[in-house]
Amino acid sequence: MEEDQGDIIGKAFVEHYYQLFDNERPSLSSLYQPHSMLTFEGQQILGVHDISSKLQQLPFERCRHIVSTVDTQPSSVPGSILIFVSGSLQLPEEEHQLRFSQMFHLVPSPQGNLFVQNDIFRLNYG
Amino acid sequence: MEEDQGDIIGKAFVEHYYQLFDNERPSLSSLYQPHSMLTFEGQQILGVHDISSKLQQLPFERCRHIVSTVDTQPSSVPGSILIFVSGSLQLPEEEHQLRFSQMFHLVPSPQGNLFVQNDIFRLNYG
Repeated sequence: MEEDQGDIIGKAFVEHYYQLFDNERPSLSSLYQPHSMLTFEGQQILGVHDISSKLQQLPFERCRHIVSTVDTQPSSVPGSILIFVSGSLQLPEEEHQLRFSQMFHLVPSPQGNLFVQNDIFRLNYG
Repeated sequence: MEEDQGDIIGKAFVEHYYQLFDNERPSLSSLYQPHSMLTFEGQQILGVHDISSKLQQLPFERCRHIVSTVDTQPSSVPGSILIFVSGSLQLPEEEHQLRFSQMFHLVPSPQGNLFVQNDIFRLNYG
């Protein structure tokens, strides 16, 4: 299992996702669909509308994600990719970075575009 | 999305998995299948045989997993569950616990038993 297409796509997705998150957060809604699921620090949110609201209402306007590792695997859904990220989050008012982990399950839409079907985010308290 | 069957099964699986890992590691092989995938600290391993070998050859005989959080979501494969775990790992020779995150994708076999199709493990260095 050397670096394959899924791995390349997964890493490109991760770069794109956090670039939008840090600089253009409202555009993240383009990556979710009506049946997408987000679990954010234990809170379960269903659907692109509520997910987009949640991400825009986070109690910080600006942040910076620093990615440490990206692991990908194909899932059993044809064309879909599981992505597992670890990294740090720099918030403007915080001296220290916060460690986080996040997983995405990217699934092709009927039109063939990959969207986020599953998204689980956790801060890692030391 | 209140606590549903997937959440109950997911949490029971996590308890079972780390109980085996910490006390009866060779028995973990019963949870994987020939096409299961494990990515362990970036190393990709395919199939129950190689996964089982890897887990038994880890450079510590005894360890203890302390689970902090378990998040679950249904995946798009019918009957399957995505599980996202954060916790700490206590090794016998180490004074400090190591933080880790791990994800599992449990998928039903043709016989209807859930097995680990995808498994990604990472230590979270502070």
